[in-house]
Amino acid sequence: MDDQLSPTTRSTVRRGRKRAQTDRHQLYDLLDSCLICHLGIVLDGAPVVLPTGYGRDGDTLYVHGSTGSASLAAATAGAPVSVAVTRVDGIVYARSVFHHSMNYSSAVVHGTATAVTDPAVKLHGLRVLTEHIVPGSWEHTRQPNRKELAATHVLALSLREASVKLRSGPPNDEDDDVAGHREWAGVLPLHQVWGTPEPCPLLPAGRAVPPRIAERPVLGARPDPEMVR
Amino acid sequence: MDDQLSPTTRSTVRRGRKRAQTDRHQLYDLLDSCLICHLGIVLDGAPVVLPTGYGRDGDTLYVHGSTGSASLAAATAGAPVSVAVTRVDGIVYARSVFHHSMNYSSAVVHGTATAVTDPAVKLHGLRVLTEHIVPGSWEHTRQPNRKELAATHVLALSLREASVKLRSGPPNDEDDDVAGHREWAGVLPLHQVWGTPEPCPLLPAGRAVPPRIAERPVLGARPDPEMVR
Repeated sequence: MDDQLSPTTRSTVRRGRKRAQTDRHQLYDLLDSCLICHLGIVLDGAPVVLPTGYGRDGDTLYVHGSTGSASLAAATAGAPVSVAVTRVDGIVYARSVFHHSMNYSSAVVHGTATAVTDPAVKLHGLRVLTEHIVPGSWEHTRQPNRKELAATHVLALSLREASVKLRSGPPNDEDDDVAGHREWAGVLPLHQVWGTPEPCPLLPAGRAVPPRIAERPVLGARPDPEMVR
Repeated sequence: MDDQLSPTTRSTVRRGRKRAQTDRHQLYDLLDSCLICHLGIVLDGAPVVLPTGYGRDGDTLYVHGSTGSASLAAATAGAPVSVAVTRVDGIVYARSVFHHSMNYSSAVVHGTATAVTDPAVKLHGLRVLTEHIVPGSWEHTRQPNRKELAATHVLALSLREASVKLRSGPPNDEDDDVAGHREWAGVLPLHQVWGTPEPCPLLPAGRAVPPRIAERPVLGARPDPEMVR
């Protein structure tokens, strides 16, 4: 696929063009650094937005859910969908209310999701999802049986039509405000960090936490340990 | 407003009923602990999902954006919207791929947003938004002038039609898997923490970071300092 994003009118960023990214790898980096997306679908003429996990394989996004979900059922029936993934990296404290902002990376994907029904492809999609959300778990835990597979919808969505926006750096204040303001201005970074693993109460005492969980890399940009309070 | 959530078919949780919450204060707690929402709207028959900041005043959600945004323009014209707010609290490592999950709190609000045009109400909405995303900044930075107000859309959405879902606790594994599994299972908590404030390069040297920023409380459940790695 072309390395450039935004081939259509709908996925061309109109607002905040200077924040629009055109490199497809910006999209991959964002998707690979987040856990969930927000899936939008039209039901009875009204929008419904639902959070759900995802995984990416090349230019295909896999989304899954229970077969009982009305939104997922609509998406699998060929309805158009919109998927947004957003990572907030910090709060921008400006000298005016108007120029306050967030540093972030966000992507919006448009398209028509297809239901993955071929058993081998469905297993592949679930494996991609699993490796994204819980790396190592596909290999180290019991894989889905036929009943579990039947109870799970897997959708595939092409990443062809996507836009990415990104803001970073200090506030963009008006000159007058920079000259006249007497308080601090800058960025308060926001990081996501893993806590200490909490063992299942049904676990025998002393079972070790495997490195893939105990040493799981942080999501997004890795914070300097000195820089987290 | 009634303290109970879910008065309509659309906002009644069908999937995962045991995760559905019926106390309105669960909705408030979630909204007060997150920064952004995902706003869904229908444009030309297709859904569009966009991330944006919000603020809450009682049972009114305020959302804002640039007057150039097509989605916001559609919402202000009385189109139905869906707003989702999601906080991921941890990853649930189960003994089977199928029972892997996330601990989370999520809300989905349905309704028709109204454009806030009355100048006093618009200022109030922006103040609510500002106090939510950057507490203290309304008082301590320059408030919006007429031009800035005109360049900003403020939408108000009632929280009447809303659903909340929440998952917490250890994995819900099959008995056979609990008996037969030989690896660790449990929850890896995910926390959001503030980094060290980064001063604007245009700031005179030595200007102190005010306590409202330097000591800003963490979002969501406060992690035990001993429990964050």
